[in-house]
Amino acid sequence: MAQYRVLIDANDEKGIVHKVSTLFYENDLNILSNNEFVDKENNKFFMRSVVDGAINADELQRSLSDVLPTGGCAHVIIPKKKNIIIMATKEMHALGDILIRHEAGELEANILAVISNYDVLESLVSKFNIPYITVSHENLERDAHEKKIIKAIQEFEDVAYIVLAKYMRILTPQFVETFKDKIINIHHSFLPAFIGANPYKQAYERGVKIIGATAHFVNNNLDEGPIIAQEVIHVTHAYSWRDMQRSGRDVEKIVLSRALKLALEDRIFVHVNKTVIF
Amino acid sequence: MAQYRVLIDANDEKGIVHKVSTLFYENDLNILSNNEFVDKENNKFFMRSVVDGAINADELQRSLSDVLPTGGCAHVIIPKKKNIIIMATKEMHALGDILIRHEAGELEANILAVISNYDVLESLVSKFNIPYITVSHENLERDAHEKKIIKAIQEFEDVAYIVLAKYMRILTPQFVETFKDKIINIHHSFLPAFIGANPYKQAYERGVKIIGATAHFVNNNLDEGPIIAQEVIHVTHAYSWRDMQRSGRDVEKIVLSRALKLALEDRIFVHVNKTVIF
Amino acid sequence: MAQYRVLIDANDEKGIVHKVSTLFYENDLNILSNNEFVDKENNKFFMRSVVDGAINADELQRSLSDVLPTGGCAHVIIPKKKNIIIMATKEMHALGDILIRHEAGELEANILAVISNYDVLESLVSKFNIPYITVSHENLERDAHEKKIIKAIQEFEDVAYIVLAKYMRILTPQFVETFKDKIINIHHSFLPAFIGANPYKQAYERGVKIIGATAHFVNNNLDEGPIIAQEVIHVTHAYSWRDMQRSGRDVEKIVLSRALKLALEDRIFVHVNKTVIF
Amino acid sequence: MAQYRVLIDANDEKGIVHKVSTLFYENDLNILSNNEFVDKENNKFFMRSVVDGAINADELQRSLSDVLPTGGCAHVIIPKKKNIIIMATKEMHALGDILIRHEAGELEANILAVISNYDVLESLVSKFNIPYITVSHENLERDAHEKKIIKAIQEFEDVAYIVLAKYMRILTPQFVETFKDKIINIHHSFLPAFIGANPYKQAYERGVKIIGATAHFVNNNLDEGPIIAQEVIHVTHAYSWRDMQRSGRDVEKIVLSRALKLALEDRIFVHVNKTVIF
Repeated sequence: MAQYRVLIDANDEKGIVHKVSTLFYENDLNILSNNEFVDKENNKFFMRSVVDGAINADELQRSLSDVLPTGGCAHVIIPKKKNIIIMATKEMHALGDILIRHEAGELEANILAVISNYDVLESLVSKFNIPYITVSHENLERDAHEKKIIKAIQEFEDVAYIVLAKYMRILTPQFVETFKDKIINIHHSFLPAFIGANPYKQAYERGVKIIGATAHFVNNNLDEGPIIAQEVIHVTHAYSWRDMQRSGRDVEKIVLSRALKLALEDRIFVHVNKTVIF
Repeated sequence: MAQYRVLIDANDEKGIVHKVSTLFYENDLNILSNNEFVDKENNKFFMRSVVDGAINADELQRSLSDVLPTGGCAHVIIPKKKNIIIMATKEMHALGDILIRHEAGELEANILAVISNYDVLESLVSKFNIPYITVSHENLERDAHEKKIIKAIQEFEDVAYIVLAKYMRILTPQFVETFKDKIINIHHSFLPAFIGANPYKQAYERGVKIIGATAHFVNNNLDEGPIIAQEVIHVTHAYSWRDMQRSGRDVEKIVLSRALKLALEDRIFVHVNKTVIF
Repeated sequence: MAQYRVLIDANDEKGIVHKVSTLFYENDLNILSNNEFVDKENNKFFMRSVVDGAINADELQRSLSDVLPTGGCAHVIIPKKKNIIIMATKEMHALGDILIRHEAGELEANILAVISNYDVLESLVSKFNIPYITVSHENLERDAHEKKIIKAIQEFEDVAYIVLAKYMRILTPQFVETFKDKIINIHHSFLPAFIGANPYKQAYERGVKIIGATAHFVNNNLDEGPIIAQEVIHVTHAYSWRDMQRSGRDVEKIVLSRALKLALEDRIFVHVNKTVIF
Repeated sequence: MAQYRVLIDANDEKGIVHKVSTLFYENDLNILSNNEFVDKENNKFFMRSVVDGAINADELQRSLSDVLPTGGCAHVIIPKKKNIIIMATKEMHALGDILIRHEAGELEANILAVISNYDVLESLVSKFNIPYITVSHENLERDAHEKKIIKAIQEFEDVAYIVLAKYMRILTPQFVETFKDKIINIHHSFLPAFIGANPYKQAYERGVKIIGATAHFVNNNLDEGPIIAQEVIHVTHAYSWRDMQRSGRDVEKIVLSRALKLALEDRIFVHVNKTVIF
C-alpha cells in the first residue's frame, strides 16, 4: 500500500468527477483527501486527490488521461523529495529559514546548491554541507552573468524548483524561459503594490499602515507572475523604512517557506496568471 | 434548471464519491462546487456539493440515501430564505449588524422576531418593522422565564435558527434541548479562554495581547458547544477592559454574522463537538 | 475638573517636552495619557496629551503656542460631539455601520445629514430621523452637480468631517479644496494597490491572496491622500470578484468606522502626505 | 555623543514628566523617542525614552532617582549586547530561528551557550560555534537535574536572559527563583487557553478555528507568567493536531524571537503579572 497524489487539470465538463472516481473505485483506491475547483469564468476543472492503494502510477495516469476531455491533463505522483536550488544575494533570513527547515527534515526537498552573486552567505551555507556557488556579476554583462548561472544550475539533474530567497537581481526573459514554471520568488511587498526596487522605502513614503510580502512564480514581467502566498503585518507612523524592512523580513521568510512547501507537496495549479491552491 | 445543495454525512467507506458522483451524472446534474472531508480519526465522510439541473429533490435525496453506508445521511436542499429569531439583551452592535444586513438583502433569512429580556432595543428593532417581544425576567424563576420565551418562539413556524446576539443570560438544558442544534451564540472571548462572565475583564486581568470572539452552537455546557468561527484583534497594555470591550464589539458582530451566513448557506456539519465547514 | 486634549505639532527642537510639561505642571494639570513622535526625516515633533484639571483652554493654548518653536501649533480641545455629514451612493453596509454606532451612542458625533446622488438609501436613513438629501447627478455636468452638493453641505454649520461611506463618484479639486482636510474616504482596496474603479475585479484578475480596504483623507489625486487605517482579509482562488466584494464589505465598514473614531477623538495628525496616529 | 535608554517606573504623581524632562533639558539631552503609560488602576507611571547627548549615565540615573516619588526607579542604560543562554529539548525551529538571527547580527545578544536535556540539537548548534551543554535528566530527580543546569548556567557571567526555546520540562520554583524575571518561555498555545501538556492536541479536540503561541516570563505557576507577545493563525477542520503543530511552529518561533528582541532592547516593564511594552 502506498500513497499517490493525483492532479487533474481539464476543461470543465459534466461527468469528470464521476469518471475519475469510478477509476479510483475500480483500482480499489481509498480517497484520503479530495479537493476540486471549477473556474467558471475560464471553464476549467482542477482536482487534487490523495489516495492510497496498490497501483501502477503510470497506468493510472494513462487511464485518467483517457477519460478526461480533450486537452485534459492528469498526473499521478508518488510523494518523494524534490531537488531544489536556492539563489540568494546577501540577506540571511529567507535562506536561513529554509536551511533550518531542511536540517529539521521538515521539507520534502533536497537542496542541491545555493548560488549567489556574492560570497557573503558562503560561511552560513557551508555549515550545512550544502554546495555554495558564487557567480559574481562584476565586469559581466547581464546575459553573460546569467549564462554562467544557467550553466551552474544545469550541472544538476532533476531540478524541480529554483527558489529566489532574496536574489536581488532582475532575471532576463531568457533565464525565465529556461526554467519556465520552476522559479519561485519572494517579493518584499504586498503585490501589486510597490513593484520594483526598495518596496519598503516606497511603502514608507506612501505612509501605509500595513506592509506585506508575496511569494510568486516568476514570469517575464517583473513581479507580475502568479501569486502563491501573501502575508501582511501592521506598521505605524513610528516605523522608519529600515524598521519596516526589519519587521518585513519575518513575513518574507514565512511566506516564501509556505509557498515552497505548497510547491513541494504538489498543491499548486497555475492557470493563465493565477494559482489554484489545495 | 435550478440549483441544489447536496449534503452528505456518512461513515467513510471506499466508493462513496464514486456512488454519489455516478448519481449526479445519471441525473444529468452539473457540479458547480464540491467539497469533501474525511475525518480519519472518527472514520467519517462529509461532502457538500452545489449542483444544477432539473430534478426532483426528494427523489435524489432518497437515491443518495440508498447508496450511502448504513447510517449515512443525505440532504438535498433547494436554497431559500430560512426563518430566524434573534435574542438579545441590551447591546446594539451585534443585533444592529444583522438588521442592516437583513435590510440590505444580504442575508438568506427572514427575521421573524427579536426577543429580549429588556425593552431597550425595541426602538431600534421597530424601525425595521420587525416584531419585538419583551419577556422580562423580573420576579420570575429562570425556568418560568424561559418557558415564556419558548412559548413566544413556538408561536412561529419553521424556525431554522435562534441567534443569540449578545443575549446575556445562561440558558437551561431544557431550553437548549428544545431547540437542539439550532442555537447560535456569540461569546465575547477567544474560547476556550475566558469562559463565563465578563471575559474582557478576565482578559484584561490576565494581561493578554490578543482578544477575540467565538461563534458557536450552544449545548449544555456553558460556552462549550461546537465552534463555528473565531476572530481576534491585537491589544496593548494601554487598553482598559472597557477599551477591550469597545474594540471587541467589532469582532463580535463580524464573527456572529459570518457564522450565521455559514449556517444559512448550509455550510456547517456538526460532528461530536466540532464543526466541519465548507 | 475637566478633561482636555492637547495637540502639538512643531519643528523638533531640544526642550519642547520640557517646556510643555512645565506648563502642564504650572497649571496644575494631571497627565492622563501622553503620546509623542519625532519624525526625524522631516524634523517634526508631534504630541497628544490628555490632561485633567481646571483651566481656561484658550489661555493654555496661547501659553503653549508662545513656548513652541516658530511655526509650531498647539490646540487645546474640550472633548465634545463633532458635526459630520455622510455621503453615500447605493450601498448600505458602511453607512449602516455608522448609523448603528450613532444610534448606540458610540460615536462622538452628530450626523447632520446623509447626502446621496440616489434615493436608494433614503428608507434606511429616515428610520433614524436623520435628514436625507438626494442630489441627483442626472443631466448635470460634474461641476454643477458638485456645486449643488456643496451648497447643501454649507447649509449646515460647523461641519467637522464629511465621511464618504462608499460615495462612488470622483470629487473635483474644487470640492476637495472647499472642504480641505475634512473629507474621509473608504477605498475598497489595500492602497496603493488597485487605485480607481472596481478594485475587487482588479484584485480578482491579479489573483491576489489577500484583499483589503483603506480609509484616507481625500486630496486631489485620486486615492492618494494620507492613509488613516487599513485592514485586510485572506481570500482564495475560490472567490469570484463578487465574493471578494461581499467579504470586503466587512473590512470596508470596520476600517471606515475606525478611521472616523480616530478623527473624532482628535488622534490624527497629517503631515505632508502621511498621518501620525496616537 | 551617545545614545541612552532611560527607563522609569514609579507611582504616578503630578509633575513626573515635568521633572524628568527638565533633567533631560538641563543635561542638554535630545529626546529621540519617548513613550509613557499611566496605569490608572494601580496608580503606576512607566516611561521609556531614548536620548542622545554626552552625559555620565550613572549620574543621570542618580539625579532621576532623586526627583522620582519615593519607591520610584530609574535606569539609564547604554545599549550593548546582552548575554543570553538558550535552553531547548529536541525541536529545532525556535532555536534555529534565534541562531540564524544571531548569525545575521540581528540580535543585540551574545549567545553564551545552549543547554539541553538531550544531545539531539548538538549538531545544529555546533555549526555556529556556540557551546552546547547536554544535561541529561535520565536517572535524576527533578531537583538534582535542575541543580546541574543551574550550575552550568552559573559558570557564565552576566546572564541577562534565559530563553526557553521549546524546553519541554517544567521548571521548579527553585529554578525560577534563582533566575527571577530573567526566563522567557514560548508556550505553544494562545494562553490562557490550553495550559499544560500538548496544547495542539487540546486545541484539536476542542475544535478551535484559530491557534496561537505566547511568549511570557516564567513565574511559579505553569504558563501563568506575564505575557510579552502573542500571535495566532487560522486553522480549519481539515487540520489534524500534527498539522496544527507544524503550522504552529512558525508562529512559535516568530513570537519568541519578537519577545526576545523586546527584552534585549529594554522595551518591557513588568508590573504585578502584566507587561507594559514600548
